[in-house]
Amino acid sequence: MKEETKVNENMVEGRNAVLEAFRAGKPIDKLFVLDGCTDGPVRTILREAKKHDVILQFVSKERLTKLSETGKHQGVIAIAAAYEYSSVEDMLALAKERGEDPFLILLDNIEDPHNLGAIIRTANLAGAHGVIIPKRRAAGLTATVAKTSAGALNYTPVAKVTNLKKTMEELKEKGLWFVCADMDGEQMYKLNLTGPIGLVIGSEGEGVSRLVKETCDFAAGIPMKGEIDSLNASVAAGVLAYEIVRQRLCR
Amino acid sequence: MKEETKVNENMVEGRNAVLEAFRAGKPIDKLFVLDGCTDGPVRTILREAKKHDVILQFVSKERLTKLSETGKHQGVIAIAAAYEYSSVEDMLALAKERGEDPFLILLDNIEDPHNLGAIIRTANLAGAHGVIIPKRRAAGLTATVAKTSAGALNYTPVAKVTNLKKTMEELKEKGLWFVCADMDGEQMYKLNLTGPIGLVIGSEGEGVSRLVKETCDFAAGIPMKGEIDSLNASVAAGVLAYEIVRQRLCR
Repeated sequence: MKEETKVNENMVEGRNAVLEAFRAGKPIDKLFVLDGCTDGPVRTILREAKKHDVILQFVSKERLTKLSETGKHQGVIAIAAAYEYSSVEDMLALAKERGEDPFLILLDNIEDPHNLGAIIRTANLAGAHGVIIPKRRAAGLTATVAKTSAGALNYTPVAKVTNLKKTMEELKEKGLWFVCADMDGEQMYKLNLTGPIGLVIGSEGEGVSRLVKETCDFAAGIPMKGEIDSLNASVAAGVLAYEIVRQRLCR
Repeated sequence: MKEETKVNENMVEGRNAVLEAFRAGKPIDKLFVLDGCTDGPVRTILREAKKHDVILQFVSKERLTKLSETGKHQGVIAIAAAYEYSSVEDMLALAKERGEDPFLILLDNIEDPHNLGAIIRTANLAGAHGVIIPKRRAAGLTATVAKTSAGALNYTPVAKVTNLKKTMEELKEKGLWFVCADMDGEQMYKLNLTGPIGLVIGSEGEGVSRLVKETCDFAAGIPMKGEIDSLNASVAAGVLAYEIVRQRLCR
């Protein structure tokens, strides 16, 4: 999570503040706790974190002090999301309400907040019903993401799920097909990308992870003529999302 | 030019250093000179700048001191390009060598180096023969652009021209058609984008400028279903470039 150390946009520091944030139902993306800290108040915070299935990281005093903006962290710092997360059910309801086949975008290992923001922006304009990100190894909905999304975060639902593969399997039972971006995939123009669909985009370096890839029904390749390896992740997402738009419009 | 003040990647400071850079043929994107400075050495530098058609800006002492990295600017700071520029002729030669219809990408008012880098990356993979940028109101080929291009700057030629409209008119005489990205344009899937083509992309806020737009043969619209205004400029460039790729492959 690069942006934490740079921006610290939504930090909640100190035992009372963190506990209050949990109890007020504020969406917490991550909790940093001083390694070895096991007194009563910290144990209460850890129970809340577990209850809300929050990513937990035990860190050294040095790391915590470096993260801290106020210098008064008392051993705990929580990173709150700038926006509320939606649920996958909300997205399916949105598609139904619009009378459209569901069109979801799933992100695997996209950790750069600028890419996440740009993809939410594209999802909004391409008419996708939502963006699904995993709890681990993903950028949260920080103020940077909100800004890069150019306002799209106010309209396009984003859900955070524990296990991307499991979510995909559940959606398959509801009739969705999954296509992942893959350099070695069939050329995207030759695939039928109409119908209820989930588009899976991986990180630029590693692509889509093996388990997620195996859960996909198709692998779609963007034709590449040049000398370099890959498109920017948000550009690749845009090109594939618009191939889906084209097929929906033209078939 | 946002990155100047942040990165100062390719600054040449001081009278001798700047003069040497000019005489060595180093590509200079911009020259800052202390306002009111008219002694001999500075006049020599101004003559060189004029000879090389370099963008010149007279600034206050405060501004120059703020820009300076060394504190020893002696009234002159030049911003050098990290890469050499190519010529439009080189791009046409490249298309001819590959036995392809020319496919150029022209950027109007793209000042963000990350967008420029991402577009050069897309140009490489979409098989475009080059990227043309104007001298004024454009990001130069800084180290940030090189990094964001993910190596594409080593393969895809970039040319800087004084007048975009004039360059377009000259290219029209050589048989190129021009299409600009425009929200109010005809839906891109309905246009014939095959043949020798120049794709013109404007900035996110303002789009393509009036004179350049009037010089275009078509205006292409990306279908937009959402609530927000526009795609990120590099995503829009990717979506349109790949519509050209699709039509070249599928017709």
